[in-house]
Amino acid sequence: MRSIKLASLPTIKRLPSYLHVIENVQKEGHQFISGTVIAEELDLEPIQVRKDLAITGIVGRPRIGFPVEELIDAIYRFLHWDHQHRAIVVGAGSLATALMGYPEFTRRGLSIVAGFDVDQSKIGSVINGKPVYAIDEIDARLPTLAASIAVLTVPSSSAQDVAERVIAAGITAIWNFTNVKLKVPDGIIVQKEDLSSGYAVLSVKIRTVNGE
Amino acid sequence: MRSIKLASLPTIKRLPSYLHVIENVQKEGHQFISGTVIAEELDLEPIQVRKDLAITGIVGRPRIGFPVEELIDAIYRFLHWDHQHRAIVVGAGSLATALMGYPEFTRRGLSIVAGFDVDQSKIGSVINGKPVYAIDEIDARLPTLAASIAVLTVPSSSAQDVAERVIAAGITAIWNFTNVKLKVPDGIIVQKEDLSSGYAVLSVKIRTVNGE
Repeated sequence: MRSIKLASLPTIKRLPSYLHVIENVQKEGHQFISGTVIAEELDLEPIQVRKDLAITGIVGRPRIGFPVEELIDAIYRFLHWDHQHRAIVVGAGSLATALMGYPEFTRRGLSIVAGFDVDQSKIGSVINGKPVYAIDEIDARLPTLAASIAVLTVPSSSAQDVAERVIAAGITAIWNFTNVKLKVPDGIIVQKEDLSSGYAVLSVKIRTVNGE
Repeated sequence: MRSIKLASLPTIKRLPSYLHVIENVQKEGHQFISGTVIAEELDLEPIQVRKDLAITGIVGRPRIGFPVEELIDAIYRFLHWDHQHRAIVVGAGSLATALMGYPEFTRRGLSIVAGFDVDQSKIGSVINGKPVYAIDEIDARLPTLAASIAVLTVPSSSAQDVAERVIAAGITAIWNFTNVKLKVPDGIIVQKEDLSSGYAVLSVKIRTVNGE
């Protein structure tokens, strides 16, 4: 697997927030946006914004700024959001429900097409219009669902087991919301999400303000 | 407000994952852990781990490693997780339900003590043992709840309004799960969470592997 340069990860993570700002400006009918405006809107340094946006291949023009439509297209291409990504979510609890109902994902090319669970009370139900199947059916269901991504929202204790099952069924990318560091074969993509990271930053900000 | 050096934000975000690894090692009865072991477990460079952990003031000893108990305490202190943080969540939907039921937060000092909503069908209900009140009651309820943090999981269209209401009621820190860049008075802390950031990284990894 070619790996992404670590240095560009923070840039990649900022691009969605740039996209928000730029799309809002487009809605207002503007054809150009300056790096300084984006920077002000997001509390970033203008030089940071220009460096980040350079990764998309679009360069701003002096005194005019970035062409809005081209920049939006370039961000979509860079983030691979001009492709459809079909995903299943395993562990059909409240977090899965939230993710399945997150309108932004659909606009960004991510379709969560079904849920899977072990809980009989959830199997057969429909969440935000998407069916919930028994995890035992994953091998039979996955070819029809044509999903390559599994969003993991199971309890930590079953995370590794579930990861192995979905990989065996043909999943090649896992978006891991559990706090388990998954062991996966080469070539399988894992992106770990940690809600505690944001809480850590919030908490340190509170400590800093309180002067403790 | 003293601001946190931007350079240390990635370090702060990584500390929770270090804590996981170190606590697991402690459960197994070890008294020391090497930076190399932490690095291997988390796919990081050992030098990165040592630099990150230095922020806590604990230094590893050559050939022995870091003292596990001291390091855990130091991370808790650094992250301000040795303090209790009381929070309310505004917008009592599925994401709020997920956050209210996230066992890790409680262990890390974060108590979500109540929910608020405008939806009559939710007001008066109980989510994971916590009451849901009408947003109109926030001024009356907040002193008793003694919460200083508001977790915002409302629709984007009402995010700014809700932020202003909770700040007027006495909230001083906002964990913002909406995609709106909030405008808040000086001294109010905002930490924005963006689920699209993780999806962006996942999506770029998929593009990179597929060689597109």
